[in-house]
Amino acid sequence: MKTIESTKNERVKAWKKLHTKKGREQTGSFLIEGDHLVDEALAASVVIETIITTRKEYVATFSGSIYYVTQAVMAELSMTETPPGIIAVCQKRIMKQPTSLDGVYVLLDGVQDPGNVGTIIRTALALHASGVILGKGTVDLYNDKVIRSTQGALFHLPIYTGDLHQWVEMFKEEAVPVIGTALTNASPINRGQTYPAFALLVGNEGEGVQPSLLAQTTENVYIPINHDSESLNVGIATGILLFSLQG
Amino acid sequence: MKTIESTKNERVKAWKKLHTKKGREQTGSFLIEGDHLVDEALAASVVIETIITTRKEYVATFSGSIYYVTQAVMAELSMTETPPGIIAVCQKRIMKQPTSLDGVYVLLDGVQDPGNVGTIIRTALALHASGVILGKGTVDLYNDKVIRSTQGALFHLPIYTGDLHQWVEMFKEEAVPVIGTALTNASPINRGQTYPAFALLVGNEGEGVQPSLLAQTTENVYIPINHDSESLNVGIATGILLFSLQG
Repeated sequence: MKTIESTKNERVKAWKKLHTKKGREQTGSFLIEGDHLVDEALAASVVIETIITTRKEYVATFSGSIYYVTQAVMAELSMTETPPGIIAVCQKRIMKQPTSLDGVYVLLDGVQDPGNVGTIIRTALALHASGVILGKGTVDLYNDKVIRSTQGALFHLPIYTGDLHQWVEMFKEEAVPVIGTALTNASPINRGQTYPAFALLVGNEGEGVQPSLLAQTTENVYIPINHDSESLNVGIATGILLFSLQG
Repeated sequence: MKTIESTKNERVKAWKKLHTKKGREQTGSFLIEGDHLVDEALAASVVIETIITTRKEYVATFSGSIYYVTQAVMAELSMTETPPGIIAVCQKRIMKQPTSLDGVYVLLDGVQDPGNVGTIIRTALALHASGVILGKGTVDLYNDKVIRSTQGALFHLPIYTGDLHQWVEMFKEEAVPVIGTALTNASPINRGQTYPAFALLVGNEGEGVQPSLLAQTTENVYIPINHDSESLNVGIATGILLFSLQG
């Protein structure tokens, strides 16, 4: 096991670059923190390049290297207030477009809060979705808060990116209904209506789904809410609709 | 308008004590930050004792005092990274027990994450609940992150505290079904089954609802999830069940 004791070490500086989207795009790598996520990544088919730990006794079976670091180095690398005992450098997956879209998908248009995106991915996995598609303006999947909020679900569910206008067209070409969410020009969700396959389109926390996408959908729905209430959280709305639309 | 320029001012020290639960219990007051929450509080029947602002031109119609403070004082008082232009000191509401429990209620047993509790309150208001009851071990309603996550819903919905064992008995005495959530010894939620009135009992993020409460309920349910998934977030589960159980 190699040891790093200085926060000014060049490797530490290189790992810290993965805190930014730019750094992650340049290397194709990202960081995960804590035993739970590292165990999930080891158990899934994630390629782990490096494990960094403060525990001298740490052992793991994988193809990369293990670095033993001091608490100070760990604190430098961690994005959390309480630094974990372990961090791993993982390779981003390259997601090929699915051969069939005949399933349940969630499309995110400009969802900006990392906690919301992570929770939606966790919810999509739990509620039997086939994949999640992150459109323009949606926060980066490999943002540390997104990863933490997924609780590891990102390792179990295909997650795509791309222009949602094109994705919506592809769903429609395969006769999979695309269900948008909107507060105006939409129908209240019909509790009895379920679909074997569908794409659910949810939008930005303040602005909702952009009008040009809503114009492309098969139908647009809303969840009727109390007049004293301004809105539902986008993660909550996604959970309710995913559950309600599945038979 | 009175002016405070020093972060060491005695009033500033007294307001800062409201950052802790102990401080809030000693005074019966709590802080809210930002225009949206202050506007919601002014519009609702919340008693505002003091408004603290960095805007010399600020005007509001209410019975308390307005203090003009410097940016440094505001930064000292704020719990957020980007201090707002306004903070208000509000009086806690005294909630009397409702005369009838014939409605939709959400009972929280040891829900510890402030974001979850705030989001559940926001969701309960949106989905037509009559009230939320915070049991032992649930984070304080007046925690700054809880308040922020409610987005003002706490001013529009009755929120009670107390021993949930007693509350469950009271619901049952009024023949209102109490529906617990559990992963074992529970039935999958029946999508078609709805209730005109019910109490939904959800629990701690890791431990769930305590067994002694689950033993008291009318029935216990779970949401069937993917075997690759560990759990749903408690806020998401609450949203799905509140929606699904209402006719």
